[in-house]
Amino acid sequence: MGEDRGLSLRELAELLACELRGDPDARIHGVAPLQGAGAGQISFLANPRYRSYLDATDAGAVILRPADAEGYPGNVLLVKDPYLAYARVAEALYPPPPTAAGIHPTAVVDPAAEVDATAAVGPHCVVEAGVRLAAGVVVGAGCFIGRDTVLGIGTRLMPNVTLYHDTRIGNRVLIHSGAVIGGDGFGFANEHGRWVKIPQLGRVIIGDDVEVGANTTIDRGALEDTVIEEGVKLDNLIMVAHNVQIGAHSAAAGCVGIAGSARIGRHCTLAGGVGIVGHLEIADNVHVTGMSMVTHSLTEPGVYSSGTPLMDNRDWRKSSVRFKQLDDMARRLRELEKRLERLNTNEG
Amino acid sequence: MGEDRGLSLRELAELLACELRGDPDARIHGVAPLQGAGAGQISFLANPRYRSYLDATDAGAVILRPADAEGYPGNVLLVKDPYLAYARVAEALYPPPPTAAGIHPTAVVDPAAEVDATAAVGPHCVVEAGVRLAAGVVVGAGCFIGRDTVLGIGTRLMPNVTLYHDTRIGNRVLIHSGAVIGGDGFGFANEHGRWVKIPQLGRVIIGDDVEVGANTTIDRGALEDTVIEEGVKLDNLIMVAHNVQIGAHSAAAGCVGIAGSARIGRHCTLAGGVGIVGHLEIADNVHVTGMSMVTHSLTEPGVYSSGTPLMDNRDWRKSSVRFKQLDDMARRLRELEKRLERLNTNEG
Amino acid sequence: MGEDRGLSLRELAELLACELRGDPDARIHGVAPLQGAGAGQISFLANPRYRSYLDATDAGAVILRPADAEGYPGNVLLVKDPYLAYARVAEALYPPPPTAAGIHPTAVVDPAAEVDATAAVGPHCVVEAGVRLAAGVVVGAGCFIGRDTVLGIGTRLMPNVTLYHDTRIGNRVLIHSGAVIGGDGFGFANEHGRWVKIPQLGRVIIGDDVEVGANTTIDRGALEDTVIEEGVKLDNLIMVAHNVQIGAHSAAAGCVGIAGSARIGRHCTLAGGVGIVGHLEIADNVHVTGMSMVTHSLTEPGVYSSGTPLMDNRDWRKSSVRFKQLDDMARRLRELEKRLERLNTNEG
Repeated sequence: MGEDRGLSLRELAELLACELRGDPDARIHGVAPLQGAGAGQISFLANPRYRSYLDATDAGAVILRPADAEGYPGNVLLVKDPYLAYARVAEALYPPPPTAAGIHPTAVVDPAAEVDATAAVGPHCVVEAGVRLAAGVVVGAGCFIGRDTVLGIGTRLMPNVTLYHDTRIGNRVLIHSGAVIGGDGFGFANEHGRWVKIPQLGRVIIGDDVEVGANTTIDRGALEDTVIEEGVKLDNLIMVAHNVQIGAHSAAAGCVGIAGSARIGRHCTLAGGVGIVGHLEIADNVHVTGMSMVTHSLTEPGVYSSGTPLMDNRDWRKSSVRFKQLDDMARRLRELEKRLERLNTNEG
Repeated sequence: MGEDRGLSLRELAELLACELRGDPDARIHGVAPLQGAGAGQISFLANPRYRSYLDATDAGAVILRPADAEGYPGNVLLVKDPYLAYARVAEALYPPPPTAAGIHPTAVVDPAAEVDATAAVGPHCVVEAGVRLAAGVVVGAGCFIGRDTVLGIGTRLMPNVTLYHDTRIGNRVLIHSGAVIGGDGFGFANEHGRWVKIPQLGRVIIGDDVEVGANTTIDRGALEDTVIEEGVKLDNLIMVAHNVQIGAHSAAAGCVGIAGSARIGRHCTLAGGVGIVGHLEIADNVHVTGMSMVTHSLTEPGVYSSGTPLMDNRDWRKSSVRFKQLDDMARRLRELEKRLERLNTNEG
Repeated sequence: MGEDRGLSLRELAELLACELRGDPDARIHGVAPLQGAGAGQISFLANPRYRSYLDATDAGAVILRPADAEGYPGNVLLVKDPYLAYARVAEALYPPPPTAAGIHPTAVVDPAAEVDATAAVGPHCVVEAGVRLAAGVVVGAGCFIGRDTVLGIGTRLMPNVTLYHDTRIGNRVLIHSGAVIGGDGFGFANEHGRWVKIPQLGRVIIGDDVEVGANTTIDRGALEDTVIEEGVKLDNLIMVAHNVQIGAHSAAAGCVGIAGSARIGRHCTLAGGVGIVGHLEIADNVHVTGMSMVTHSLTEPGVYSSGTPLMDNRDWRKSSVRFKQLDDMARRLRELEKRLERLNTNEG
């Protein structure tokens, strides 16, 4: 753990390729918020709202924008984006604990699976035939990996992840506990009122550097594949239906639901609870605010919303009743305008 | 796998009891979309939007409505509902891989459980006392089946499913990974501001031919049972609270939430993200559009909705402010009408 | 199980410290609803709507408010809050089945974990180094408990729960299957359009007497901790993001999503599907109705709502179109008022 040995401020400045003001030999053992940091800890100021904490901080060093550093007497790393720099510093100070390579004796690994010698397979895992685990893969306890699924270099599954058969996962992917990838898409034909299952024959393809949150589900395609491109970040409890495509470097917060065959562009963000209707297309750089429902394709970048604002319940009931009358209100408004027009004309 | 040996077009026509136009001996090894299909593959056209793909397809055969088949020179299976026929053909060509009967040596099965000789219990499963697994049951790796739970003929649990005690599951049910069935309903009395748990003593009863999606949860009843009738299809990440009843052949898409004691009719459909308030009744053949909230009982079949349309965020902010003023606007509108009435009366 | 031996009505009256009217030696073996209860069962009437069932019940005893007991000839326990009394009685009659202490031979427990002699660790569990399980802890089958995590006295994990490292859980906590606690918060900096992960270094701290529903996820803090105070009850499929604080004795129903760093007061209730935006504060005793979105801090106790009422789809489409025109409608309304004002002035 980085906390024990720590890194010098000089080393951190080199890591960030940034200017250092202060004592290059100061040793940093960890990170902490401005208001709680001590001598061996580094902090950062990204949001001007917390500026007041800077003056009072006991941090051993602070990551600051040059403008914020004026007048601050302590050790400083000067950067353009303190939050980004903080990410790099925290990563260096807190590397994930090393995992011993090898297959735990309680894991059930099919002889026809290929497990790289540097991969780790945890207790009570099940790895079926045809699976390939590349170098540095870490499979947490209790994971299930179905036949012919492939995990790229350095990919990590936290405990109790389920990957159905034939899933393709890239390099450096991180999948959190409880995630289920490759389950059947929700496809049924209807025969005289009864549902007849459509076999789900596609796969899930996940690109490099994707993160999938806890208990998120990504269904396999019906005929073609469900595709999550590189760098996509999915939070917890997200539902990605069959044949969805999510473009590179897009991100979705918790509880988002994306219906079947929706295509989402690159560099999009979906805030928590957003719903996307099936079979539509969303352009690159679209941002949707929390709990909005996207009911039609979006061809232009921008910020989109739906819903109504939070109100006191009694007031909200009144607005709700009026919402039902809106069309009537609009017609009566038009009628009034016409009558007033006639009145004016008569008088004019 | 069907892909290896395949089926002749004659066999598929017999399966569908439909007319065949073309070469009855053509062998079909798999299914594919019109635009990607090759000689050994069968495709289908259900949506007229994709009609243009038909002319260019290289599919070995196509499932078509008679009207769409006019002028198409290739092999054709003529049916009334191509999507339904496709479901049957895909099922025949891609049977699920056979699972060897028997209990995996790493499974922990109580001696007082009854496991049919043709049932399969996967690695690291736990099967408690009093459980009964009928003929052909398949329990995926890592599943937990609590005491006295019963699974009917041919029912399959995918890996990492959790069934609490005393659950009753019918025949040919399919439950996807991460689903939790029979957990405690959310019932508490309040004593001086503290919550006192109501023991949840009912069960979950699931009928034949039900499908339950990944990470969906169905809570046990408080005193009586939670009931999912035959043929119901539930997608992923759905919440079914205690004492809910869902009528036969209804279907709910991802992220639906159904609150306690709600009763949903037969042949209903709930689109993604729909919420159902507790203690209400929904008639047969009700359809609710995505992310709507059902706040009162629905006694008539029909299509129901709530919510507001997606808008550019700046425009939405304006509409949102006005939503708060709706009651005031309605009153002012009425006032204008009265004043204009008076004006007209005065002038008349 | 209480059903076998049962309790006398005298014993139940002592348990509730309440007045008993009728036969103190009547033996009660279980609970049942009024309309289904038999001689050995006790029932209750909390909701006046079910008053008619009381006259016809065959229950061996009924828990009633004094006012409801007038004229009822059977055995009665007289209390102020029948639902609360029922909770206590049901708990006494249906104690959870005893779990044998000890570590199942298939569990993988690190030698550097401390497991109390009275704790039970189920089959296929994994308990890492530094974990401490206090007296009476029950860990269901297939659970994963990461390094240095601590569980207090009498805390129970149902099967297939995942606790990441360094989690702190109090006494008498109940966590349902599929819950994931301590996963990484969703924190990324953006560098030229690519997401750079912020290491999530905080913990999850859960107080005494908390209940966590099936497949609910609670993320660890980024720098500081995510905190769930004592007595909080969380239903299924809830998302609690990093650095959230939930005050004591608050409750959230299914599918609630709480975004990062939100602070929720004590004794609050969030109905199903509610969303809370990040970085805001909610006062004590706030109640939010189903599927509402809380977009700003709430400093006053009360009931709050958002959304629109359920409508027939055709009517809803009309209202939706008008919602988009609301700002325009409001301006035209104002204009009409002005014109009418001028008209009146001219005429006056």
